[in-house]
Amino acid sequence: MGYRAPLRDMRFVLREVAGLDAVARLPGCEEATPETVDAVLEQAARFAAEVLDPLNATGDREGARWEQGAVRTPSGFREAYRQFVANGWASLPISTAWGGQGLPRLVATPVEEMWCSANMSFSLCPMLTQGAIHALEARASEALKRLYLPKMASGEWTGTMNLTEPQAGSDLALLRTRAEAEAGGRYRIHGQKIFITYGEHDWTDQIVHLVLARTPDAPEGVKGISLFVVPKRLVGPDGELGERNRVHCTSIEHKLGIHASPTAVMSYDGARGWLVGEENRGLEIMFLMMNAARFAVGLEGVAIAERATQRALAYARERLQGRELAGAGGPPVPIVRHPDVRRMLMLMKAQTEAMRALAYAVAARMDAAQRHPVDSERQRAQALVDLLIPVVKGWFTETGFEIASLGVQVHGGMGYIEETGAAQHLRDARIATIYEGTTGIQANDLIGRKILREGGSTAQALLDEMRSCAAQLAADGEPALASVGAQLTAAVSAASDALRFVLERAGSAPREVYAGAVPFLRLMGIVCGGWQMGRAALAARRRLGEAGADRPFLEAKVRTARFYAEHLLPQAAALRTAIVTGGASVLALEEEQFYLD
Amino acid sequence: MGYRAPLRDMRFVLREVAGLDAVARLPGCEEATPETVDAVLEQAARFAAEVLDPLNATGDREGARWEQGAVRTPSGFREAYRQFVANGWASLPISTAWGGQGLPRLVATPVEEMWCSANMSFSLCPMLTQGAIHALEARASEALKRLYLPKMASGEWTGTMNLTEPQAGSDLALLRTRAEAEAGGRYRIHGQKIFITYGEHDWTDQIVHLVLARTPDAPEGVKGISLFVVPKRLVGPDGELGERNRVHCTSIEHKLGIHASPTAVMSYDGARGWLVGEENRGLEIMFLMMNAARFAVGLEGVAIAERATQRALAYARERLQGRELAGAGGPPVPIVRHPDVRRMLMLMKAQTEAMRALAYAVAARMDAAQRHPVDSERQRAQALVDLLIPVVKGWFTETGFEIASLGVQVHGGMGYIEETGAAQHLRDARIATIYEGTTGIQANDLIGRKILREGGSTAQALLDEMRSCAAQLAADGEPALASVGAQLTAAVSAASDALRFVLERAGSAPREVYAGAVPFLRLMGIVCGGWQMGRAALAARRRLGEAGADRPFLEAKVRTARFYAEHLLPQAAALRTAIVTGGASVLALEEEQFYLD
Repeated sequence: MGYRAPLRDMRFVLREVAGLDAVARLPGCEEATPETVDAVLEQAARFAAEVLDPLNATGDREGARWEQGAVRTPSGFREAYRQFVANGWASLPISTAWGGQGLPRLVATPVEEMWCSANMSFSLCPMLTQGAIHALEARASEALKRLYLPKMASGEWTGTMNLTEPQAGSDLALLRTRAEAEAGGRYRIHGQKIFITYGEHDWTDQIVHLVLARTPDAPEGVKGISLFVVPKRLVGPDGELGERNRVHCTSIEHKLGIHASPTAVMSYDGARGWLVGEENRGLEIMFLMMNAARFAVGLEGVAIAERATQRALAYARERLQGRELAGAGGPPVPIVRHPDVRRMLMLMKAQTEAMRALAYAVAARMDAAQRHPVDSERQRAQALVDLLIPVVKGWFTETGFEIASLGVQVHGGMGYIEETGAAQHLRDARIATIYEGTTGIQANDLIGRKILREGGSTAQALLDEMRSCAAQLAADGEPALASVGAQLTAAVSAASDALRFVLERAGSAPREVYAGAVPFLRLMGIVCGGWQMGRAALAARRRLGEAGADRPFLEAKVRTARFYAEHLLPQAAALRTAIVTGGASVLALEEEQFYLD
Repeated sequence: MGYRAPLRDMRFVLREVAGLDAVARLPGCEEATPETVDAVLEQAARFAAEVLDPLNATGDREGARWEQGAVRTPSGFREAYRQFVANGWASLPISTAWGGQGLPRLVATPVEEMWCSANMSFSLCPMLTQGAIHALEARASEALKRLYLPKMASGEWTGTMNLTEPQAGSDLALLRTRAEAEAGGRYRIHGQKIFITYGEHDWTDQIVHLVLARTPDAPEGVKGISLFVVPKRLVGPDGELGERNRVHCTSIEHKLGIHASPTAVMSYDGARGWLVGEENRGLEIMFLMMNAARFAVGLEGVAIAERATQRALAYARERLQGRELAGAGGPPVPIVRHPDVRRMLMLMKAQTEAMRALAYAVAARMDAAQRHPVDSERQRAQALVDLLIPVVKGWFTETGFEIASLGVQVHGGMGYIEETGAAQHLRDARIATIYEGTTGIQANDLIGRKILREGGSTAQALLDEMRSCAAQLAADGEPALASVGAQLTAAVSAASDALRFVLERAGSAPREVYAGAVPFLRLMGIVCGGWQMGRAALAARRRLGEAGADRPFLEAKVRTARFYAEHLLPQAAALRTAIVTGGASVLALEEEQFYLD
């Protein structure tokens, strides 16, 4: 069955949960009126359903192919990208300074969710191009910007990020790629990069590689890394494409999923490169764009979860198997009637909606962090964004994978057959907990950079905000809301305990604290999801009192929040125990004791 | 890296946890001396490592191929099966009455775990043949037994189970395959069966299909299903193979995993079949063998978990990335040093060991249920086996998949590359929660047939046993054991609450109770795992006081039990809340509210 964008939920979250109206009041966001946003969402929904979604399964089966340095993407992808660019989708979130449309992040977010739901493999190329644009915008010289950004903003050229090397994955200190200065501010780049998404493809004539490398006398470790722009074809002074640069794709990987997306091994054999920013400050630029990239990968978790949920629900409504439980015999019923199938679908639906609400709420803060006229508001928004990015990346992608797996399960035996389509979502989703920093890396970032560095102040403030939301819910006369309030209160309390443990013990027992980093990230994710569902339920309850309210949708939102509270929030206390009491037992085994055969 | 059977843990569990000595005292089990068992395990370990494991990855890549009705298994599989039979492995667990070696289930279990760890696709054929043998043993006429069982017991012929049809998966009442009686007690079988594992292959000349079908005047539903033996080639009175029967493989499936194992679509076009047992009692025979089959699939969860753990640990010891946390710089360290990698490895190790201990404990009860001289002991053992089989099947397979996914995660980006091997375990493991009854089916069986039918008496007795084990642990002077005791006490209490809820509410609110069936199964699994780890820790502590004790292993067991208690047992309380308070919210949405776009 085809993908249909969940426009009702997207609109509800934009308006009632994430604060579209407040974003539209920010300087430069005035065009984000409800009407414009609606029109954008509807057109994007059509493009996703009509152009991208039909290529998803065929792209998976056909896969990207490598032939003597060239990569052929699956049938239809090149043409779909041409349309994507022609319709202006590539430039949607890009600054107007470079010819983009400059839509707020909050509006770009549901659109990007749609691309990824419809065709994750396709969506990676525009996503990475955006990342490369941000890096160049942030630090490149004006000359480089003028040369590259307009064509990247339009989608005429695409971009890549070249970080990983065989010996340097999570640990960029181990990079070996070399950059030797030549006359005229140019460099020669030598080395091999792996796992380069869309490092080579047949969509455009030009690919702009951003490459991390070391100059010969650079300091050791991450303080000696510089960033270079290395085009596939050299660019003349007026932007015309010249000869081939000495960078080549020497193979592509055979992966578990995202088959249509080429993952390239790139060889730099004295390729010409131009420094971005200053020497030895490449990692800093990477960090500048990391929030955006990690947020985008987090969004993949929501997107795949949404797609998997739609597919599972369609199957569960159609597949006749078994009789009504506690009924008196009768004909076979659609399996959606069976309590456990319903439980699985509710797990899928509730977590997808919780993640979407949190994603859009974070997107709104990104807009505020960038554009709010008041300094302190920008800073406050940025601090919250910084805190929540690892949660979005880590929790969403882990949950997205679990939801994709539930999607397989709802299909029973058919779920295991590739032609059904459910298994593709599982395979595709599996990468998202790994790239752009594994869940473990996100969790360390959350605890180390985002909490300990500032003594936990933003995290404390966030928990306070959640606590008062929980109190408001708990005091509500509606039993569903009161139940959400009670569970959320308990979960926030568990999160507070865990946070206190982290703050108190990080100095004296850092290894024990970090042993609980991923459980802590998960705990924060679950609680934040409950908070957003609670806020959504409160908003739904307000709207239910209005004339012409969309009752079925709003009632479903309240009931879904209750399900989330009763089935997911109780995990918070279990995670607290693991974090607070379990650190030593993670570390207790001697290495040689791990396995004794 | 190659698979090595975890012989130390296997031996420890057999002797200290599952009670090998008690099993060896059962009538007919006298040969299961420690020396014999050791010899069997060591030879099996060698066969698994040297013959089966090397074919696992190549079998996945090559896959089974269908060509005009014939199936070609991947290179080397046919020869490996020839050796498997020649070495007597096929007959190991089969009754001596048919030429088998009649080893106790407890001894066959670690051996079968090894086959599956080394090569899950390969192991399915002997596993299904065993199932077919049991069905024939239980109900076939003496003539059929004499004709089929000796050659199936030796492995010269293989067997299959033909249940599923396109419209009849979990719901066998919907079967349409017809069986028309002819003269001489023969039948003609017409219909199509799907998802038939090893329904066609190139290992043996003969395949013995057991097929569920309806006779023309059979009652509707599951009371009108009969079981037939339908050989691929007709068998003469002296067992010689005659002409081809009218059963053919019309295609094989393209699956997410277990690529080397052909999953056949079988077409019966007037094939000759012979009735097993009586007409309309086919389902009963299926139930007779279902325990064994579900146990075997549960064991796949342990086996894949073991294999994934070994692979992840080997990688984590070798991959240098990042510096020592809280160290002062220094060189890159193996990632096994990082707390979160350790946490993942501990999750893998602890749950694998807990599942293994529970599996072997259940296997020992299977032997007692079959052979104990005292009626009441046989009955008590059988009741516990019946109760725990859905837990073994459901919890092990869900956990096995999660562990395989952790295995991918430990590898980082390399985990997503197929050549690494970690992804294959993930793909292979994913089927186990589906076939032989999904986790939802297992959970319904646990609550409906295994608990409610007897008013919860076996479950209560089991919880009592666990409670006293928890008390013994809690009273121990060793802090690790005391922590296990405290967590186990709390978890057993959560399980008791949940059981009480099930017993009290099943009559008045069955849909709400069944909405919590899978969380209940999971809760029982987690608690049973904690119980077995607690028993293992107690045994290890006893042995630690002895001269010549294997200290590194025994200390690791105690520490691993503590990790299990602190990281996994706390989930019990969260599951209790979902079960006890969350039933209504599973069912609250109207069907049309599920998805509103």
